Amino acid sequence: MNEFDRIARFFAPLSHAAPEAAGLLDDAAFIKPAAGETWVITTDAMSEGVHYLADTPPELIARKLLRTNVSDLAAKGATPRFYTLNIMLPAHIDDAWIQRFTAGLAVDQRLFDMQLIGGDSIAVKGVHASFAITAFGVVSENQQLLKRSGAQIGDIVCVSGRLGEAALGLKCASGEEVQGLTAQQREYVISRYELPEPRIHLGQALLGLASSCMDISDGLVQDGGHIAKASNVKLILEMPKIPTVEHLSVKEAITHGDDYELLFTVSEADMPALFQKARTFDVAITAIGKVETGEGVRVLDIDGKEVDFEKSGWQH
Amino acid sequence: MNEFDRIARFFAPLSHAAPEAAGLLDDAAFIKPAAGETWVITTDAMSEGVHYLADTPPELIARKLLRTNVSDLAAKGATPRFYTLNIMLPAHIDDAWIQRFTAGLAVDQRLFDMQLIGGDSIAVKGVHASFAITAFGVVSENQQLLKRSGAQIGDIVCVSGRLGEAALGLKCASGEEVQGLTAQQREYVISRYELPEPRIHLGQALLGLASSCMDISDGLVQDGGHIAKASNVKLILEMPKIPTVEHLSVKEAITHGDDYELLFTVSEADMPALFQKARTFDVAITAIGKVETGEGVRVLDIDGKEVDFEKSGWQH
Repeated sequence: MNEFDRIARFFAPLSHAAPEAAGLLDDAAFIKPAAGETWVITTDAMSEGVHYLADTPPELIARKLLRTNVSDLAAKGATPRFYTLNIMLPAHIDDAWIQRFTAGLAVDQRLFDMQLIGGDSIAVKGVHASFAITAFGVVSENQQLLKRSGAQIGDIVCVSGRLGEAALGLKCASGEEVQGLTAQQREYVISRYELPEPRIHLGQALLGLASSCMDISDGLVQDGGHIAKASNVKLILEMPKIPTVEHLSVKEAITHGDDYELLFTVSEADMPALFQKARTFDVAITAIGKVETGEGVRVLDIDGKEVDFEKSGWQH
Repeated sequence: MNEFDRIARFFAPLSHAAPEAAGLLDDAAFIKPAAGETWVITTDAMSEGVHYLADTPPELIARKLLRTNVSDLAAKGATPRFYTLNIMLPAHIDDAWIQRFTAGLAVDQRLFDMQLIGGDSIAVKGVHASFAITAFGVVSENQQLLKRSGAQIGDIVCVSGRLGEAALGLKCASGEEVQGLTAQQREYVISRYELPEPRIHLGQALLGLASSCMDISDGLVQDGGHIAKASNVKLILEMPKIPTVEHLSVKEAITHGDDYELLFTVSEADMPALFQKARTFDVAITAIGKVETGEGVRVLDIDGKEVDFEKSGWQH
């Protein structure tokens, strides 16, 4: 099948509900934004042997790639709309593989109500495939944007979900024996590693409430450092308060990435409103620390002593 | 240098004039479109060993990548604004290489008045680097969009510039001896291959005038087929009228890609207005054929006989 037949057969169906895509017959997409919209744009790539193993099902690769991008939109409170896709294919990848990859995209773009609006397919030397998605979401007028740079001195630091699930899932997926884990728990944490859950509804609920927000892809300590740097503040986190998975040390749980939970700051005055709203969230919220003057992230143990980290998170 | 220091040192300076980029400290960019704007989005990737050789200067790789994307914006009459960048790096690429790559981007983004607003950097296995850019441009209100799908029966098919310059440049760059070429001509065609010239001003001038438009990246015959398909028409091209470079067969010149000239259709009634406007263009315009009912592209020789092509253009 040539490039253009491939586009028509596997990719064009992913764009059918979006006139913006012009049927993928053009080399460009055309978006006419509505008045007052802010468009949020993010991009993330993955490569074989680094981000996934060669025997990972193509459907899962596609879905995880889309989800890591959607998670970045979620952290900005944006409603997902569109995505473009770059695929970089070594010779051994055939049409059957592409069909499975696009089947994965079809499932998740329906789930997130998104449409493919453009892309590019190139051949690469070697044996490792790479993929990049650029995702587009919208925040409507009158909403304060959820940037990393808005944390204020005195704000409360909060996190969604339970950290370390993906780290534990990776262990299980790699065949490591984890003591005391039931088969069901094992399956659950593997799914958390394979298919992160973008916190779209939580992100939208945080608009107008959180002063800063991001998703945790590289580990709590390292990612917290990004909010600290962008906001020019220090985050003090209390280790005993951090919700982490059992069967893993807290240190491991908060320096490993891939959880895609939201890390955000809220003023003390807005905390009651947050917990009021939290009843409608599909995920638990925990206050884990405070914003102070200074820089970086400090994690305190139960005695108030600072915990040392040789490695704060994932380096690409 | 770690990933974040790299972003701060080499990439953040490319975003300084764009508040949309939030200093590249966020994992998202924020665009607030003005009323009535249509945003044109396109994406193109390149990989070592397929699109450029390992010893190509990093500055040139970056500039060509940006230009192939800008050329797609130009073909839609869009004014370039922003771009995001995915870089996929094997272990041997060091900071000095990245510095040169970003220096190339700096030169061309100034030329095209664009700013970097986001991106992603990942490690890849193997030895081949890949790069993708997604480019964003704007067409203002009241302008009919320049799609591939607008060609009408009876329209005149036009092309800008002289085809085959990049093909000849590639021969020269590969060390092939081309008879009768002066050193100056040689240098010129090599530069045409290495640094295509996006026809931004021509594309903007064609808004409201051309019925369809695209850039020629894969060869006139193959790319013409895209307009034919998207518009549901047939293009009849007269080979003797097609402006091609000397020192290369016409067939070679119109099936090789990389020229990034514009191929477009204009109604007969609008042809005088086109040639009136053409005086202000920075590139020559030639009428080379006509739009008829049917499908595909037919190229006729001087006797009106159809020319056969075993290979219509570049397949990715």
